[in-house]
Amino acid sequence: MEKTLNVQGMSCGHCKTAVEGALNNLEGVTSADVNLDAGTVDVAYDDARVSFEAMKEAVEDQGYDVEA
Amino acid sequence: MEKTLNVQGMSCGHCKTAVEGALNNLEGVTSADVNLDAGTVDVAYDDARVSFEAMKEAVEDQGYDVEA
Repeated sequence: MEKTLNVQGMSCGHCKTAVEGALNNLEGVTSADVNLDAGTVDVAYDDARVSFEAMKEAVEDQGYDVEA
Repeated sequence: MEKTLNVQGMSCGHCKTAVEGALNNLEGVTSADVNLDAGTVDVAYDDARVSFEAMKEAVEDQGYDVEA
């Protein structure tokens, strides 16, 4: 399953690394790709193993707001 | 001795941590304090032990441009 998250506040390469790392650390996430200019993260995941809420929380724990 | 460096491209808390850490790792640097809004770093250092060039290089190695 693939989904694009809208994330506020990612400003630099460190932010990209932090958000991608947090998502990739979750069981069930196959890939996470931040687009800084767009303020988005494309995530590929197994929705039987990880929920949107868990992914949202992982990103928010890094200090960013997730819109959808 | 104290000096304020003008640094381009510091955008977030990760940048602040990276720049302060790089400077604090240098022998002779007593403190480094990034102001993200101003794009500056206040550095306190012993100029007998560390040069401006070495501090500039440490910040540039983190991926930022130093103006002065």
